Amino acid sequence: MSNAQMARSLFRLLKGCKNLASTPSEYPQPSACLPFTSSIVRTMVGLPFSFSFKPRDFSLPNSSWSAEMMRLYDYYNSLCEVETETGEKQRGPWRRLPSYNRTLKYATGGAYLSKLIQSKNRLFTRSIKTTGAAFEYVVFLNKEEQRTVCIFQAGYLLEGPPGHVHGGAIATMIDAVTGTHAAYDSGPLMTANLNIDYRSPITLGSTVLIESSLDKREGRKTFISCKVTSPDGSKLHTEAKVLFLSINVSHLLGM
Amino acid sequence: MSNAQMARSLFRLLKGCKNLASTPSEYPQPSACLPFTSSIVRTMVGLPFSFSFKPRDFSLPNSSWSAEMMRLYDYYNSLCEVETETGEKQRGPWRRLPSYNRTLKYATGGAYLSKLIQSKNRLFTRSIKTTGAAFEYVVFLNKEEQRTVCIFQAGYLLEGPPGHVHGGAIATMIDAVTGTHAAYDSGPLMTANLNIDYRSPITLGSTVLIESSLDKREGRKTFISCKVTSPDGSKLHTEAKVLFLSINVSHLLGM
Repeated sequence: MSNAQMARSLFRLLKGCKNLASTPSEYPQPSACLPFTSSIVRTMVGLPFSFSFKPRDFSLPNSSWSAEMMRLYDYYNSLCEVETETGEKQRGPWRRLPSYNRTLKYATGGAYLSKLIQSKNRLFTRSIKTTGAAFEYVVFLNKEEQRTVCIFQAGYLLEGPPGHVHGGAIATMIDAVTGTHAAYDSGPLMTANLNIDYRSPITLGSTVLIESSLDKREGRKTFISCKVTSPDGSKLHTEAKVLFLSINVSHLLGM
Repeated sequence: MSNAQMARSLFRLLKGCKNLASTPSEYPQPSACLPFTSSIVRTMVGLPFSFSFKPRDFSLPNSSWSAEMMRLYDYYNSLCEVETETGEKQRGPWRRLPSYNRTLKYATGGAYLSKLIQSKNRLFTRSIKTTGAAFEYVVFLNKEEQRTVCIFQAGYLLEGPPGHVHGGAIATMIDAVTGTHAAYDSGPLMTANLNIDYRSPITLGSTVLIESSLDKREGRKTFISCKVTSPDGSKLHTEAKVLFLSINVSHLLGM
C-alpha cells in the first residue's frame, strides 16, 4: 500500500468524524496562519499506523520556469548551505520556504489532521494546477537580515492590461510575500493595511524580484516594506508598505 | 456554417498574419483598457462576409450563484429598466456591465481583430472556467450618481486564512471594480495607488457588496473610494482609496 493509498484509506476512515483537528502549517503560508474560523476544534487523532503523506511543494522548480527564474533560484538556493573551512556543509544565511496549496501538516504517526484536508479550499496563489499558468514563485528568507526575496514568474492567466500583469495579481503577491515574512517574524497575524504604488507595468511571462524588509515592530503591529523590480534591480515596478496585526490564536490551539 | 465556425475559419485564415489589430474592448474591463505594449500594431481586416462571434459574458448568472447573489442581482437588474407612466419601458439609472475574459471586440462585418484573440492570456478575474470556483461577480454602474455596485461571491480557490478570502483576492476585486468605474468615467487609465484597510475577514463562499464612488478628478488623476460590506451593509469588511492616472493611447489607435 503506497503512502498516498494509506492516506486515502485514512481519510475514508475519518469521513464521518466531525471534529478533525486544525493545525497551523509547519511552514506558515501567506496569511494562512490566521484561523479566523472560531468553530475549528482541535482533536488528536491517534492512527493505528504510521504514514507519510507529502503534499506537493510548489516552491520547487518545474518545467515552466524560465532560464532567468532558474538562474535566480540556483543563486539563492546556493546561499542556503555554505561550506566551512574544514569542508563541512552547514546552514547558510538564507532559507527556502516550502509552499503548499492548503493548510495541511505533513504527518507521521500519531498526528493532527485538519478538517481542511477534506475541503476543496485552496490557497489563492497556489490554486491553479497547470504549471506556468498563474503564480510561479519561491520565497527565500534571511532571518538575520530580516528580509525576504521572492522570485516571481507571472503566468498568462494573470492578465490585466493587455500583455501585462493585473494590478490585483501584483497586490496578491505583495500580500503573500510580506505576510510570509511577517508571520516568520511575529507569528500569527492578519493584514491590516496594504498601500501600493504602481510605478511601471510588468510584462506577462517575465520574471521579477519581490523583496521585503522589516521596518519596525510596535506592540501588535509589524511594518514591512516591499518593492518589485526587474531581476537586476534596474527597473522599479512597484513599491508597497504593509501593516500586519498580530492575533491571538491560542484559544484555537487549546492553550 | 455557424457563427462560431465562421469565426474559427477566419482565425485559421489569419493565422499567418503578424499584424492583427488591437482594439480596446467595447466594454472596458478593469484595467484592460491599458495597452502598454507599444509594439501592438493596428490593422484593418476586411472580411469577405459578416459574422457574429459572441464571447461568454461572465456577468450573467450561473448555477453556482447563491440565492443571496441572485436576489441582489435581480434587484439591481430591475433598476436597469424602468416603466414610464404610459407603460413604456426605458433605460433606468443603473446599467449592468458585461464582462469578458479577454480583450476582444464583438465584431460584425468588417472588423478590428485583436492579435490577443490567438493568445492564451486571460483576464485575471475571469481566468478560471469552473463556475463558482473563483471570482463570481457582476458590476452595475450608475453614471449619474458616479458610483458602482459589485455583487461578489468568493469561491473556494480564493482562500487565504483558513475558510476566508485571501487579502490579495480582495485587493484584486477592489482594483477591478474601481478600475472599471474610473475607466467609464475618465477613459483609458492605469492604477497608480491602491490603499486598502482590512477591517474584518470575509468568509469563503459568502456574498458581499463592493461599492465604489467617485471622490474627485484633478487633471490626469481620478480618485475613487471603495468599501466592501455584507449585503445589508451592517458589516464593514474592507475600505479602500484608489488613485488612477489617465493615459494617452491615441498613438496606439493611429489617432
